[in-house]
This record gives sequence, C-alpha cells and structure tokens, in this order.
Amino acid sequence: VAIRTIHYGIGAMGSLIAHHALSRADLQVVGAVDVDPGKVGHDLGEVIGLTEPAGIVVTHPDEASWPQADVVLHSTSSKLEIVAPNIEQVIAHGLDMVSICEELAFPHDGNTALAARLDQLARERGVTVLATGVNPGFAMDTWPISLTAISRRVDSMTVRRVLDASERRLPFRQKVGVGLRVEEFEAKVATGSFGHVGLRESALAIAHALGWERHQIERTLDPVVANEGIAVSPHVVPRGHVAGIHEILVLRQEGRAVLTLDLTMVAGVLDPRDEVEIVGDPPVHVVAHGGFHGDSATAGITVNAAAAVLRAAPGLLTMRDVPPVHWSVGKR
Amino acid sequence: VAIRTIHYGIGAMGSLIAHHALSRADLQVVGAVDVDPGKVGHDLGEVIGLTEPAGIVVTHPDEASWPQADVVLHSTSSKLEIVAPNIEQVIAHGLDMVSICEELAFPHDGNTALAARLDQLARERGVTVLATGVNPGFAMDTWPISLTAISRRVDSMTVRRVLDASERRLPFRQKVGVGLRVEEFEAKVATGSFGHVGLRESALAIAHALGWERHQIERTLDPVVANEGIAVSPHVVPRGHVAGIHEILVLRQEGRAVLTLDLTMVAGVLDPRDEVEIVGDPPVHVVAHGGFHGDSATAGITVNAAAAVLRAAPGLLTMRDVPPVHWSVGKR
Repeated sequence: VAIRTIHYGIGAMGSLIAHHALSRADLQVVGAVDVDPGKVGHDLGEVIGLTEPAGIVVTHPDEASWPQADVVLHSTSSKLEIVAPNIEQVIAHGLDMVSICEELAFPHDGNTALAARLDQLARERGVTVLATGVNPGFAMDTWPISLTAISRRVDSMTVRRVLDASERRLPFRQKVGVGLRVEEFEAKVATGSFGHVGLRESALAIAHALGWERHQIERTLDPVVANEGIAVSPHVVPRGHVAGIHEILVLRQEGRAVLTLDLTMVAGVLDPRDEVEIVGDPPVHVVAHGGFHGDSATAGITVNAAAAVLRAAPGLLTMRDVPPVHWSVGKR
Repeated sequence: VAIRTIHYGIGAMGSLIAHHALSRADLQVVGAVDVDPGKVGHDLGEVIGLTEPAGIVVTHPDEASWPQADVVLHSTSSKLEIVAPNIEQVIAHGLDMVSICEELAFPHDGNTALAARLDQLARERGVTVLATGVNPGFAMDTWPISLTAISRRVDSMTVRRVLDASERRLPFRQKVGVGLRVEEFEAKVATGSFGHVGLRESALAIAHALGWERHQIERTLDPVVANEGIAVSPHVVPRGHVAGIHEILVLRQEGRAVLTLDLTMVAGVLDPRDEVEIVGDPPVHVVAHGGFHGDSATAGITVNAAAAVLRAAPGLLTMRDVPPVHWSVGKR
C-alpha cells in the first residue's frame, strides 16, 4: 500500500521533494499546501514545473479540510519559530510529519521549552514529528553516529564536508557568499544570518547520542578567497573575491576537543567529499568520494524517512529515535 | 543506570565481548554461562585471561537460577540449529538477547519455520532477540543499507570487503584456508563447511530492506594463491599455496545483477577496506580505509546493540528493526 503524502511548502526544496515523491511507486501524493497566493489554486505539476498536471490543486494550509493522508512532508523555513505554528497545524490534523527545518533537527537545546511543548502535543495526538535532510540530518550527524556502531571506544571524532558550491542552486551560492567582496562577506557575517544553518544541531545530535554532555562549543566562520578567477555559470568570481565559506565547530569536554565539524562550501573546490575520522578502538576513516549531493540527497532522505516515521513512536523525535531510514524500491 | 549483562558462551569471541563489557561504564556484567566443564565453576576473569578475578563465577546454562539481568550477550555457534535451544532458554528466562550467530542475522529465509517459532516465543514473553556482528551485521548489510537513506533511486549496489587475514586470529585464518595446498582447499570447499558464514544472510537483509524480492542468488568461492611467499606469523605461506579466499555473491532480479557482495580475505592483502558503490541517484561511493576491524568491531557492535535492544519492540528482529545502534560514553 502506498504512503499518502501531503506536501507543505512548495518552494525550491519543497518542489524537488514533491517532484521526487510523484515519481515513487511507494508514495501517493494526495495534497499540497502553500501560503503563496501565486501558487494556491494552481495544479501542483504546474507549480513545480512539470509539463503535465499532477491532478492536485495547491490549497492554503489554513483551509479547514485536508485530504486523507499518512504523512506531511514539510519544507517552509530553516527557523523553528517560523515553523512551529506549521507543526502545530499538522499535529492538529493528526498526521505524522517529516520536515527539513534545520533548527528542528535537534531542538532540545536552545529551544527547550518550545521543543517540549511540540513533543507533548505530538504525543497527545499520537503522531510523530521528525526533521531530516542531508545536512543536518545525515552527512554530519546521522552518518557519523551510525559509524560508531562498531566502536569499543570513541576518543574523538572529526567530520569533514567539502562541497563544490558551483554545482548548487543560486540561493545556496548566495548563502555561502560566492562572488562577494571580502568586506561584503564580513558585513553579512556580522548580521548573524549567514552561513550554514544546522551545524550546531548536528553537533548536539552527535553529543547527545554519544553521551558527551556538559560540553563547550566554539565556532569559526571564514571566507575562502579566490586565488584565481573561478567560472561559476553565469558569472565569474574575480580573483580576491569570496569563493565560499569555511566553518568549523569544535565541541570540547573539560577542555579536550572530542568533536570537530569542518564544513567547506566553495565554488570550484577540488576533491569534494564527506569524511569521518574516529580516533578510538577500532580507528575508523571513511570517505564518501564526491560527497553526498545536497539537493538530491535531501529530497531522497525526506521521502525515505516517511516510512520510518510511520513505524516510529509518537513525539518530537530525532533521527536516532526512528528506525533506520533507507531507500526501498516501493512494494510494501 | 548500567545495563546488566549475562554472557552466554565464553569462547574466543565470547571472551572478547566479555572483556570489552567489563571495561564499559554503561554495562554491568552480572553473569556468565558456558557448557564447557573446564570453565564452569571458574571465575570469568580467569577464563578470559584477565590477571584479576571478575567476581563472576561461570555457571552451566542449564542451572535453574540465573542472575537478575537486562540482556544476554550470546556467542556459541554460527549455526542456527545449534543456537535455537539457547535462544529458547534465554526467552524462557524473560531476557532480551544479542547474539553473534551468523545464521540468525537474517533467518527469515531458509529457516522460515524455525524463525517464525522463535519470533512467536519472543513476542509471547515480551523479549527482543537480535543477531549482529561486524559481518554479518554491519559491513556488508547494515552499513550499505544505511547509505541508501539519501537515495532517490538505487539501480544497483556493490559491497566490497577486503580483509588482511594475517592480522586475524588463527581460527579465522584456518577458516579462509591460509597456507593450504590448492587441492586441500578444494577438498574443504567440497565439504560445504568452508568460507564465510553470513554472506547469504547479508544479501537477504539488503534485499528485504530495499524491496528486491523474487530474486536469484549465485555464489562463487575461489582460493587466492600466493604469487610470492607470504610471512604470516608464526608461519610462511609458500608460493603457490593458498593465501586466502575470494567469495562473490550476486543477487539478480529478472536477470539483472542488482546486488554484488564481494569478499576477499587474504593474508598480506594490499589496501584492506570496506567499500560501497551505489549506482543510482545520487551516486554514492564510500570507502572505509583499512576496513572495519573484525574482532574489535564485533565486540563493539554486540555491546552497543544492547542499548538498542532494550528500546526495541519484542520479537526476533533484524538490525533494520531496532533503533540505530551506536556507541555511547556510558552515562545514561
């Protein structure tokens, strides 16, 4: 039996997720909601750029009646405070939910009160709320955690994600500052709304799983400056301008660095990869050559998580609380 | 609160597991059972070669009274028919169980009736039975399955494990034929009790998770012959003798190879590694350099699985049915 999905938020990522869901034998897309007046009333296929209609009309989420469904795939914002009313709405409809909201990936620190309230609401209604994605959600948390399955001892862990920003969507390239002058970059950093959202959530998810409590977290965020001009279609990043961003998060226990998350997102980078090194017994060094592709991987894991969420206990859960997420050909 | 463990079977691997469990802050070893009259009545520390007593006397498993415990860590045999009475005994004591019995890793095919009976007994008693280990249990099944979390489409998967047999225990080297003449190797193969136990179970675990039903499985098993003499302490494998084993399992659907498990266990092999290649969207190519070390990894995953089993539903489960297994520093 196919899993019936409602798609909440049909922006850039929401479109990719809906596009993928429509192609899957194990899913049946039954609804789509968005607040954008330019999308409401239009066919989902038209909104996401298909040549044929999907037979689903996009409605406003506040409309009282939603179609019968199993799970909501949600993609509206990175910010938990913006997303929280969406979550309450989905819970009120009695539906399970997979969201790609980055701040929801590990909300139990910093947003403790809000997370506790959402968890209680979800339990009362008997539904599961989960956030996932490629990062946070996989490359720098779930994946490295899963590699400790064989560990007798983990002394420290380093997770490195090196990503070629030139292969990503324009909003992503803007997010990492591709093409800016260094002064512009520094000014954006000063606003606090720059760089990758989710590194802290990934670190907390790992620390919580591995029992590294009572820690201190330090972060650095620096521009990577182009030594040579870099062609990034349809522009060129001139020499001396910003080619991307380098973020490092170090989590210490009693002064000792036990976890390092090292994220490089630069146009034209050599050797893009995801990499985990575990110092311990046994030592582990794993490299995903080419890296986990951001957009396809996020669409994939969001849809794949639907089946896991349906099998999970109620509540506001994290990836380590649900059965292992994996792809399936579709027959269930 | 520490997880209280009883160790069932104190052979080579059982000793390693008990040794590791005694060192963990999150576990409390409360019992040890073995049928060997040379071990019954002796202190566990003495049996596993510690310099100090563990304060636990090894008893015979048939003794009516077992200590109060949370989970049994079991290590007696690779064969399900030998292990089945052990499992029934543990279930009757009302205890959860983690076993390293290879044939138990995916018993729902070939041993269908026995697996169904054990599953029913476990459910009736409200306990969980799980088999794990590095292989089967991780390197060639759980790990590659977990890498499909981000997949939109998996066309085919190849899992390669290349292992340096010279770094392993003598019984392991004997299992893969190190030092035999080719005729001796072929004679052993003809007995059917040679090579790695668990490749079929790994293939079935993957096929079941990914929905590759109605498949055909082919296997080959060949000697790897030494081109040059290989020093394997305390012996030398002469040129022309067997340095190890190469096993390939191919799983086909409608004639198409969708899964290849390729296992090389050879003394003195170059570039030992675990490797997963997924042809699909996105493509994935991951290499664990050096490979997941067999004995430490099996001890690690067995102990780490204890916490997951305590959180899991009752029944005879596989690794994809329990919460993700991972290491933890110990405070719970």
